[in-house]
Amino acid sequence: MSEVHVSRRARLRDRCAASTAHDGPADAVLISRPANVRYLTGRAAPGSVLLLGPDGADTLVSAPGEGPANGAHPADDLRELTLEVPSGAESAEAHGAAGYDAAVAAAGIAERSGAGALAVEEHHLTVARHRALAAVAPSVRLADLGLAVEQQRVIKDEEEISALRVAAEITDQALGELLESILVGRTERHLALELERRLIDHGAEGAALPTSVAAGPNSGLPGHRPTDRRVEEGDFLAVRLGARYRGYGCQIGRTFVIGTAPETWQIELYDTVFAAQRAARESLGPGTECREVDRAARQVLAAAGHGAALGESTGHGVGLEIGEDPRLSPEAVGKLDACVPVTVQPGVHLPGRGGVRIDDTLVVRPQADGGPELLTITTKELLAL
Amino acid sequence: MSEVHVSRRARLRDRCAASTAHDGPADAVLISRPANVRYLTGRAAPGSVLLLGPDGADTLVSAPGEGPANGAHPADDLRELTLEVPSGAESAEAHGAAGYDAAVAAAGIAERSGAGALAVEEHHLTVARHRALAAVAPSVRLADLGLAVEQQRVIKDEEEISALRVAAEITDQALGELLESILVGRTERHLALELERRLIDHGAEGAALPTSVAAGPNSGLPGHRPTDRRVEEGDFLAVRLGARYRGYGCQIGRTFVIGTAPETWQIELYDTVFAAQRAARESLGPGTECREVDRAARQVLAAAGHGAALGESTGHGVGLEIGEDPRLSPEAVGKLDACVPVTVQPGVHLPGRGGVRIDDTLVVRPQADGGPELLTITTKELLAL
Repeated sequence: MSEVHVSRRARLRDRCAASTAHDGPADAVLISRPANVRYLTGRAAPGSVLLLGPDGADTLVSAPGEGPANGAHPADDLRELTLEVPSGAESAEAHGAAGYDAAVAAAGIAERSGAGALAVEEHHLTVARHRALAAVAPSVRLADLGLAVEQQRVIKDEEEISALRVAAEITDQALGELLESILVGRTERHLALELERRLIDHGAEGAALPTSVAAGPNSGLPGHRPTDRRVEEGDFLAVRLGARYRGYGCQIGRTFVIGTAPETWQIELYDTVFAAQRAARESLGPGTECREVDRAARQVLAAAGHGAALGESTGHGVGLEIGEDPRLSPEAVGKLDACVPVTVQPGVHLPGRGGVRIDDTLVVRPQADGGPELLTITTKELLAL
Repeated sequence: MSEVHVSRRARLRDRCAASTAHDGPADAVLISRPANVRYLTGRAAPGSVLLLGPDGADTLVSAPGEGPANGAHPADDLRELTLEVPSGAESAEAHGAAGYDAAVAAAGIAERSGAGALAVEEHHLTVARHRALAAVAPSVRLADLGLAVEQQRVIKDEEEISALRVAAEITDQALGELLESILVGRTERHLALELERRLIDHGAEGAALPTSVAAGPNSGLPGHRPTDRRVEEGDFLAVRLGARYRGYGCQIGRTFVIGTAPETWQIELYDTVFAAQRAARESLGPGTECREVDRAARQVLAAAGHGAALGESTGHGVGLEIGEDPRLSPEAVGKLDACVPVTVQPGVHLPGRGGVRIDDTLVVRPQADGGPELLTITTKELLAL
């Protein structure tokens, strides 16, 4: 695994050294976004930053008391440096975040190593931190790295996809167990906590995203936060959850009917959303435009009179973060590649009545290999529970 | 409650308009840190920003699909504006965060309103967002607001302290129930999930901080993340948790012994940490230097040979965030005031053996009023469970 991180860092260095780099070539790089630091080092270390130095040395710099959770890998040439609390230093209150700032320390190392240009993540560093970096590294030109690491993360290797498969299995298991339990009379909040407990029981590090349980008139709302509303006979019950495993998170969403006999409007609405989600799933393939996946779902919903229901997007990438690139939306300009995992998550909400959301996580694969690989395999048939 | 927010915003405006403001006077202010937006508006709205306009109008600007969770209060003159998804706009991928950015929209409003200087939170806005603001507001000087809102938040009013009292009650109840249940054989992870479920059961919005359960050799480690280690006879069991209620979070930490007869080293270590925590608690008062509270604990630990154990600080402020100002550390330069809630949370960890942490949340009060008000009232006597 450590060779993977070494080669990812090498690839990033090459990209930054090239004249085509986002903000001009840079001989040093400072990564501060936690998911990006994890991607490039294998370390989950919240306050830490990664410095790719101009001398070819890579260093993980951690703030005091925040060394990485994982141990060092002997095969990895990554150096690790944890800052000491400076004696007699002025209060962190006076300096804001810069007092014990790993990014500031790393910039100082870059300065002393003779870096010409240091590429930093301007979409992550605050203005205050950036000023502090500039103050300790006056000889170094600070350039913008842009979304280089996020772009590198889009296509997953087999090990990452394996982690996503396990995350999906855990998620399916947790959901499956819940469906066998009594639901009527229980609150959305309790069911959400129950789902999260089961994710942990089955081996998840934690929830990949906030667990959503939406019953009755709440069902179908995207991102509904669980309330004290109790599940009742006749309700739609819409559930969304996902496990995080070895850092990788997936997502599933299913909608059920509580009781024995769904009403006609419920069956019709469910069939519409199912058809929209299927159309989007089936459009996934290497070379497909991201906006095309969104359009496939949007067209089906529009034909049924629910064109405005979809919201901003039909889905997004997953990996070390839920909500990664690519974005499956009308404004998206990119195309899909094989080995890109995405969610497909359309839905419709009818105010006052409820609605349906169906979410899957799939990996884009060539048609010759059987088309998209579905990770979240819980049935999408409308179940009455 | 809405008058409270109106007056908080008025106070901030006055501070920013003064020549003594952190980065020169400003006639407009842009607040982007979520806890600060909540403090000034009563709205919990993750992607939203607050604009105090040069014309005296206050506007809460939300990104598409992210309007505030709370309804408008008729007595509050706050305007609310939710952005629409622009048609035909380029992908959010191309623009990074700026595509649907409430802060950028707010800066545009400030420009059109003729603001001379707009104070922004440089310790929160990323470099990329700051550049996007500057691009849409070329006539406006962007100034740094600094920590003005954080400083305004330090002293709590009675309503805030009431919320903290309820949060503490909920926390004490959840912990108390756990102590009545069987602990031996259960994993740290399960106990942590159980505690969080009980917080919700008793009315918390959620956990104010990650719940820590540390058994045996893990006990006494600050910020220990629960593992699959099972609780055993003879263990120290150190627990830290906190409820969030109406946005306000508190924190409690207690250490117990599992079984009937604590060993001598356990009793001695516990007595030492208890004495250190008591010394720090008793030093709290209006006018006390923050570093003095830390020194009170540190001296007791040092006298027992554990001087290095304390780490960076003995405690910190609480409120809408756990870990607010003030910081009770050796480098702190400020003083305490009445109505400032703080944690006092020293501890000692002996590698391989375990340790003790005792955390309380208290409100600084004048001695004439009885001294510091203890919010977290679970007994600190060493219990054998």
